Amino acid sequence: MRYLMTFSYDGTNFNGYQKQPKKRTVQNEIEKILSQIYNEKITISASGRTDSGVHAINQYAHFDGNKNINLDKLRNSMNKMLDNDIYIKCITEVNDDFHARFNVVKKEYIYKINIGEYNPIDRNYIYQYCHNLNVNKMKDASKYLEGEHNFKSLTKTTKEIDNYVRNIYTIDFDLDNNILTISFIGNGFLRYMVRNIVGLLISVGEEKIKPVQVKEILDAEDRTKSKKTAPSEGLYLYNVFYV
Amino acid sequence: MRYLMTFSYDGTNFNGYQKQPKKRTVQNEIEKILSQIYNEKITISASGRTDSGVHAINQYAHFDGNKNINLDKLRNSMNKMLDNDIYIKCITEVNDDFHARFNVVKKEYIYKINIGEYNPIDRNYIYQYCHNLNVNKMKDASKYLEGEHNFKSLTKTTKEIDNYVRNIYTIDFDLDNNILTISFIGNGFLRYMVRNIVGLLISVGEEKIKPVQVKEILDAEDRTKSKKTAPSEGLYLYNVFYV
Repeated sequence: MRYLMTFSYDGTNFNGYQKQPKKRTVQNEIEKILSQIYNEKITISASGRTDSGVHAINQYAHFDGNKNINLDKLRNSMNKMLDNDIYIKCITEVNDDFHARFNVVKKEYIYKINIGEYNPIDRNYIYQYCHNLNVNKMKDASKYLEGEHNFKSLTKTTKEIDNYVRNIYTIDFDLDNNILTISFIGNGFLRYMVRNIVGLLISVGEEKIKPVQVKEILDAEDRTKSKKTAPSEGLYLYNVFYV
Repeated sequence: MRYLMTFSYDGTNFNGYQKQPKKRTVQNEIEKILSQIYNEKITISASGRTDSGVHAINQYAHFDGNKNINLDKLRNSMNKMLDNDIYIKCITEVNDDFHARFNVVKKEYIYKINIGEYNPIDRNYIYQYCHNLNVNKMKDASKYLEGEHNFKSLTKTTKEIDNYVRNIYTIDFDLDNNILTISFIGNGFLRYMVRNIVGLLISVGEEKIKPVQVKEILDAEDRTKSKKTAPSEGLYLYNVFYV
């Protein structure tokens, strides 16, 4: 039987989502617990990885489990066994051909920036930028990023990737009490893509570059044109949509 | 010259505010840094202590420093030297007879409770109660606590204290997105008093006791009548008023 889990985590004390030997990662922790419960080696497949320090409000992963286990009990057992920085929200049965990564229709990330005074309480959860930003110019610039583009200028380029084209459906801004939240909905995001976009938008907000230069940087398809990466602590995988 | 500092801290990784040998406390950290800068032993006097795990948005302390130091530079030096879970917001000159504890006119504390789903990201900053509460009954109960009362039933009783009378001017409730924030403004608060009041209000919200029983518990002037203490992570020293 195949199951789909929805879970949240505080990325602060993890070496990212993906399994790595001898490191504390989200995948390692969940697989360890599931393997104990099922008394056999269980592997989980997530919607995608998140990097070290990045949080998730709704991450998804599927796994195959042979035994008939009551799903509420499974969820409760997992939450008791897991450390308190991961939380299993929901487990449901899915079809055997469902895949948490390949069936993704769209994803939403949010990025939080404090443009007010430094706040020690939020330091691991909101990027403490602590300077003013011209949000209107950032909004103007974001219009060049929405839509289908080759995002090679705004990702980590590696030999593994041969297609840098992604479609960002919307980029929205919300400013509340000096906390700027930028939300991104798209059909997929490349490695570091959201943090690199935020780094670029901050340069626009600082009025170091003009909004139209974002289009030039994007069109160049060259990562050396925009080098800033916003720090991991402001980034959240907010939701994954399968329908 | 006497100076007054305003500062904030994340209480998670401190053994409380007050100086203790060989422990990481807020007072220890600030005094260590100030003594390095002034090259002499500096002692600070705060508006009051906060317990282990309790946060401060605006804590105040005064100290005496002999040298003429530019206050902006002092503040910047301190923030560079301090760990990133304390932040000095402001330093101003005050009269030599000002005292950060004895001159307090009123104090505001807030307490945050999550009555929705467990959120690992907020676990050190909002009490993850994660059950429903009857907030209207809690509001009714809070009316018995407002005003001048003997709070012996709702504090840690010790030989050091001979006066348990305090005046709570207002208790306000705000429910937003399943986060219940209760704010308390009063002329002073005894040890554990806010957390004990919140523990009692939660019993009312659970409908285990009736609002009017809060009056009976208060009138009993006996700590054994109400034993619940809400956990430290939901509590914030929000502000201190000197005028």
